[in-house]
Amino acid sequence: METRTTLPIASQRALSTTAARCLNIDNINPNIKAAKYAVRGELAVKAEEYRVKLAQGDKSLPFDSVIFANIGNPQQLDQKPITFFRQVLSLLENPLLLKNKEALRTSFGYQDDVIARAEKLLAEVQSVGAYSHSQGAPLIRESVAKFIERRDGYSADPQSLFLTGGASSGVNTLLNVICNGPNAGVLVPIPQYPLYTATLSLLNATCVPYQLEEQKAWGTDLDAMRRSLQQAKAAGTDVRAVVVINPGNPTGASLSADDIKSVLDIAAEEKLVVIADEVYQTNVFVGEFTSFKKRLRELQQEVPAKYDNVELVSLHSVSKGMVGECGHRGGYFELVGFDPLVAAQVYKFISIMLCPPVIGQCLVELMVNPPKEDEPSHELYQKEYNGIREGLHKRALALYEAFQRMEGVECQEPQGSMYLFPTITLPPKAIESAAAEDRAADEFYCLRLLDATGVCVVPGSGFGQKENTFHFRTTFLAPGTDWVERIVKFHSEFMAKHN
Amino acid sequence: METRTTLPIASQRALSTTAARCLNIDNINPNIKAAKYAVRGELAVKAEEYRVKLAQGDKSLPFDSVIFANIGNPQQLDQKPITFFRQVLSLLENPLLLKNKEALRTSFGYQDDVIARAEKLLAEVQSVGAYSHSQGAPLIRESVAKFIERRDGYSADPQSLFLTGGASSGVNTLLNVICNGPNAGVLVPIPQYPLYTATLSLLNATCVPYQLEEQKAWGTDLDAMRRSLQQAKAAGTDVRAVVVINPGNPTGASLSADDIKSVLDIAAEEKLVVIADEVYQTNVFVGEFTSFKKRLRELQQEVPAKYDNVELVSLHSVSKGMVGECGHRGGYFELVGFDPLVAAQVYKFISIMLCPPVIGQCLVELMVNPPKEDEPSHELYQKEYNGIREGLHKRALALYEAFQRMEGVECQEPQGSMYLFPTITLPPKAIESAAAEDRAADEFYCLRLLDATGVCVVPGSGFGQKENTFHFRTTFLAPGTDWVERIVKFHSEFMAKHN
Repeated sequence: METRTTLPIASQRALSTTAARCLNIDNINPNIKAAKYAVRGELAVKAEEYRVKLAQGDKSLPFDSVIFANIGNPQQLDQKPITFFRQVLSLLENPLLLKNKEALRTSFGYQDDVIARAEKLLAEVQSVGAYSHSQGAPLIRESVAKFIERRDGYSADPQSLFLTGGASSGVNTLLNVICNGPNAGVLVPIPQYPLYTATLSLLNATCVPYQLEEQKAWGTDLDAMRRSLQQAKAAGTDVRAVVVINPGNPTGASLSADDIKSVLDIAAEEKLVVIADEVYQTNVFVGEFTSFKKRLRELQQEVPAKYDNVELVSLHSVSKGMVGECGHRGGYFELVGFDPLVAAQVYKFISIMLCPPVIGQCLVELMVNPPKEDEPSHELYQKEYNGIREGLHKRALALYEAFQRMEGVECQEPQGSMYLFPTITLPPKAIESAAAEDRAADEFYCLRLLDATGVCVVPGSGFGQKENTFHFRTTFLAPGTDWVERIVKFHSEFMAKHN
Repeated sequence: METRTTLPIASQRALSTTAARCLNIDNINPNIKAAKYAVRGELAVKAEEYRVKLAQGDKSLPFDSVIFANIGNPQQLDQKPITFFRQVLSLLENPLLLKNKEALRTSFGYQDDVIARAEKLLAEVQSVGAYSHSQGAPLIRESVAKFIERRDGYSADPQSLFLTGGASSGVNTLLNVICNGPNAGVLVPIPQYPLYTATLSLLNATCVPYQLEEQKAWGTDLDAMRRSLQQAKAAGTDVRAVVVINPGNPTGASLSADDIKSVLDIAAEEKLVVIADEVYQTNVFVGEFTSFKKRLRELQQEVPAKYDNVELVSLHSVSKGMVGECGHRGGYFELVGFDPLVAAQVYKFISIMLCPPVIGQCLVELMVNPPKEDEPSHELYQKEYNGIREGLHKRALALYEAFQRMEGVECQEPQGSMYLFPTITLPPKAIESAAAEDRAADEFYCLRLLDATGVCVVPGSGFGQKENTFHFRTTFLAPGTDWVERIVKFHSEFMAKHN
């Protein structure tokens, strides 16, 4: 292995002047400089500093814990992983455990379906330490295809499925392929998950925003979408795709089958690629999830001439839902209606990074193919799954009720996803104080909230919002009500101070 | 969960004309179209098709197994994972196993250091299913810093370390930051690992090739590097960085401390960022690995004025070495001498993808901090580690000897990495036959080799080679000698046919 000679440790070199280096802030890739990603921005960095201080025993802070409500990170908070998933993954990581199945059963309660699944996946991937096919292991893609078939009632082709390192990496791939220069435009909902605007910045492409309707539970306003599209086209932008996040992030809104049809109508008429971010498809409290793929197939049966050429990509992930395994970076996307030559370029692009994490791929397989009713792990799986689902709904409602008690705060009823996105009406004095610090008023509010309570949320400006409105996004993942009461108390003091 | 109504399954939609879709091969991102990545290109796709055919019982092929020698994928072939690593990972995936430590010990032979390490890592990450800090979990970065300190004798700063999803994703990050437009140039060795040229294509930046010296065991020719640099500068290219792959891929060559100094000299004089791809740092058969970081720190002590502003980034990975866990996508890079404002942009860029796979991060920790001599898992670890190392060396030598027996094949003695990169002198008739198929002669050769033997290697053109020379890259990972004899036999028939 490496040599272990202990030479004198050099002290950290002092920072030198910018001019002496090759790279400085003014000459690196300007697209990176321009990109914004508030979910892990200044507030998150500060929250992490507070966390470290508390861990080091610092008693000077006015709170005793940091609540990371800035990001949908279920297992960082209270959510326990689903036992079946993790039992299988433990066997995949150490197949030698399979040499003593009796001990697995008697000492650790591993059921036969856990063992059988691990053996099946190992037979496919050989080792989770080996590169797989760049699109993902064939058997896993077949399993995803069957899941889509069961969900939608329409077949799916494993060859059109691409496993990914979380949905984020899928979005990155797709926008890379679609955007061919500064003139390429993509319709993005506002508010949106900032992955979209950030990636468009990185690609130096044009973001064409369309406003969601807050007063209609953050529904998709098709007229607004058409207006934005026409304006962009009139300005010379080559609008190529429309992003729909359903259920919505940060809004939680669920699209009806009719709204989905309207989006597909616009896509068919205007030749837009539909990017359906469906990672919250199981986080639905109100109504029922309809996939874009299903609706498209229905419409293709009804009016093939109109819909047959619609290009749709649908994304899913192990990060959200009741799975909540975001640290594993697993996900997939399905290409529908793409030119095979374009799909081949998608393949080449992803192959440069070799393959998505194989253990994450296996987790995708477990997510889309959980224990069946007659299998021994089913009962526990179902109990855990339902428990997580009910817990999320309960916490969403508790937070929603707290917001209703707060002066100047309005929030749409929770419908799905993992977030609430309330409006805050801030007094003029607060807006002035924010301006004096060269900050947007909602950013100012969120920073003060963090400093006073340790609760980290993300200002609405990080997602986009109508001018002169202020919001913040908070997850409803954190357990207990203490942190909610911290927000309530802070808010009333903040309002009093700035009135 | 999702609805399971079984509606009639629609047949796959027929492909429509290109014109009716938004995206076609001529209007997508031209940089993707231009990128080349032969390691997973046409040959690899064909090899996979053969594999599937064989698995389906097809008896029509002239071979009974496919040997994927196109890619350094140790565990796809014979290499067994190191037990200590996988035992710890199994506990991280299912922490409930820790509830019965006695059974872990008695039924599965888990040692106390395995259990202690798992508990330590779990205390840090909470759950491998949770997002970590975007740069990687702090404790893991500290562990990497200590490893670098032990290896080099110079301190490392955890804040300057970025855990990645394999080294590939690190290279992608760095080239994204460095390249600010078509005029930005990066010196890349020829032959090289095509990740570099592919990523530069994706960024529409300029690849400035410098030739390695085949006759000097693929050594780095500093004069050639300077010449390429001056030519590129004269042509108006803003050369910003130099890539060094050490030990080399595809060449296996190891740089001496003197050669490293010469590269650092050029970097200091010309203000170039040094990108040191050191993923094969433990795959060294001849001489000893010296890291760029260590050499730089030594020179900084000797002549601070000259070297203090050198910007260096060093990459490492769990994919190669005796670890061979490429499917886990783990790695890191260390920034040395970077402007803090630039480092902050690196952070923002990676944060958009949230975090590298957490289980891969934990594997990085295990790689850099293996069982110590007085710990119970040490003996087995050392035995497995040495066994893999010796096996690799033995196979490299066997393959090298086979190449010496082959007419018109010349190969440098194996020095390191996982590859041999022989020259093949092809008869004119073979070159003509290749041209008739619109192929480079080495591509033609490799394709015929695959069709005849099931052995998949990568033509030299995929890595770059001097004009009118032909090579191929093969890993020496596959066990046994049968596949080597397949190559020998094919080669002699090929030469006879085309003479």
